[in-house]
Amino acid sequence: MPLEALRFDVTPLGLHYLLIHYDIPEVDEESWRLEVDGRVQSPLSLTLDELRSLPQVELAVTMECAGNGRAQLEPHVVSQPWIVEAVGTARWRGARVEDVLDQAAVEKDALEIVFTGLDRGVEGEEEQFYARSVGIGELTGTDALLAYEVNGVTLPPQHGFPLRLVVPGWYGMTSVKWLSRLTAVETPFDGFQMRSSYRLREREDEEGVPLSRMRPRSLLVPPGIPEFLSRKRIVGAGTCELRGRAWSGLAEIAGVEVSTDGGDTWSDAHVERDGLGRWAWRSWRFGWDARPGEFVLCSRARDAAGNVQPLEPAWNTGGYANNAVQRVPVTVAG
Amino acid sequence: MPLEALRFDVTPLGLHYLLIHYDIPEVDEESWRLEVDGRVQSPLSLTLDELRSLPQVELAVTMECAGNGRAQLEPHVVSQPWIVEAVGTARWRGARVEDVLDQAAVEKDALEIVFTGLDRGVEGEEEQFYARSVGIGELTGTDALLAYEVNGVTLPPQHGFPLRLVVPGWYGMTSVKWLSRLTAVETPFDGFQMRSSYRLREREDEEGVPLSRMRPRSLLVPPGIPEFLSRKRIVGAGTCELRGRAWSGLAEIAGVEVSTDGGDTWSDAHVERDGLGRWAWRSWRFGWDARPGEFVLCSRARDAAGNVQPLEPAWNTGGYANNAVQRVPVTVAG
Repeated sequence: MPLEALRFDVTPLGLHYLLIHYDIPEVDEESWRLEVDGRVQSPLSLTLDELRSLPQVELAVTMECAGNGRAQLEPHVVSQPWIVEAVGTARWRGARVEDVLDQAAVEKDALEIVFTGLDRGVEGEEEQFYARSVGIGELTGTDALLAYEVNGVTLPPQHGFPLRLVVPGWYGMTSVKWLSRLTAVETPFDGFQMRSSYRLREREDEEGVPLSRMRPRSLLVPPGIPEFLSRKRIVGAGTCELRGRAWSGLAEIAGVEVSTDGGDTWSDAHVERDGLGRWAWRSWRFGWDARPGEFVLCSRARDAAGNVQPLEPAWNTGGYANNAVQRVPVTVAG
Repeated sequence: MPLEALRFDVTPLGLHYLLIHYDIPEVDEESWRLEVDGRVQSPLSLTLDELRSLPQVELAVTMECAGNGRAQLEPHVVSQPWIVEAVGTARWRGARVEDVLDQAAVEKDALEIVFTGLDRGVEGEEEQFYARSVGIGELTGTDALLAYEVNGVTLPPQHGFPLRLVVPGWYGMTSVKWLSRLTAVETPFDGFQMRSSYRLREREDEEGVPLSRMRPRSLLVPPGIPEFLSRKRIVGAGTCELRGRAWSGLAEIAGVEVSTDGGDTWSDAHVERDGLGRWAWRSWRFGWDARPGEFVLCSRARDAAGNVQPLEPAWNTGGYANNAVQRVPVTVAG
């Protein structure tokens, strides 16, 4: 998502970030079914129409890739080299996961649901369909959705047509696209994407901690105009309203601070009440009296649970969850 | 555009390639006008509704970035590092450029129209709105459009809302987005994007040749499944239908050949009659008896003017118009 798109409350289709692990699968809507099996009393095989006939819920959700910020880590971690742009907010419409699990009558001993997509590839020398599990507790009494629409239209291929999971507040790897199957299991799922990928580890031989909810982050709309190759920003002198967005999957945003000197001194920004709901980013504004010279603009979010963005990234083997403050070098022209 | 999206006749929104030189500009639809001025008898200031009231034309157009293929050049040229994916086909709807020029009554001495966008940045140390010119002869009696819709919806911000130029057959740099002004001029426009950028040069001090129409290219849908990091393909043994698309802005596609040995030997593919019209890519198919081993799949298009894709790229300072044949390494599993 180009950062000027932070100005939209809801990211227009085509500007939301995408991470496609393998290929976008070819799906025939007529023959497609969502299978629900495993530790359930009533296995299901649902058509899209059957899913649409369940109570429909629409939620604005900010989703961020767990690898957002990876390109800023030293030493470099080889994978998608996101700087800070792997984010977006969309209106997802679908059925509650809980309603489908209720219909299947999940057994009491079920611990997790395994969500399996139709996207297939080889990773870590294992041929696999992309699959992730989510604990039952995260799926009942929550806003987790099986979405068939985004921003008012049928899911496009790249967002998971015909059906995807959306787990608000979590990094995007959990929200499995191109769903084919939900399987209730009584022991923790140890597929590649749970066991090997998406874990915070400082060394490859550590077990590590699985990634889950998004850490707080704020980003600003880069002011002024860019220099083509360097993408450095040039701003005219005078009053300049800095705008941005902030979010956290851990708790509500409690405040955003702005620095114009690379993080030495900070001032409070004004955080708006946007009415987009708990799971969408919050917009913020800050009046800057831009005087000629060189500046490094930063913003820093904190959430109601006391989590604050760090000034420097914490390295890990997968290059995940780097929510260090954004730095936007700006030249104010005289 | 991920290459599996070659399977769609018309590229879904969000999968078509994008090149955004500066920022996506913020445009207020109410106050926006298209100004038509310069060597015209009747300068115009048109609203979007006025443009929509002109005869509407919808065309399927394959558009490719002039920098597509740049990442494969040695020595490396610093700019967007496209491999071969900077392409897409869309249905553009709008008014004919010619109808607007007729309404403005362009003077007989006008040589070119300068198309100026609202996207602003600094490039080659010049602050500029992105602007390109097109010769009058390319705009009259042709399918050049001022488009306000794509694939049946209002232009999204990233495709040039509220209005963009579409010049079928030409590389994308000509199809200026976020249009604000058309200016008829009697001498060749020498703005940065004409004089310095988008020219074929072997040395920086050459005048070079301006880029215009797309050279022939064919691409294939990578068969099988990918390995996550390397993107290398793995295919099961047996009959494998290779599919792809081919296009040329210079003349109609006359044939496509396929090689499974990296370009040593070639066989004819079957080129389809798709009914998408002259300006869209053509689909092709080739039956491959895949036997276990390592292969390098290639396809090569030729057009009715006798232009054929080269096996090796020709280097130039901007890294433009590299239409060398695609090479897709594939492992056929036993």
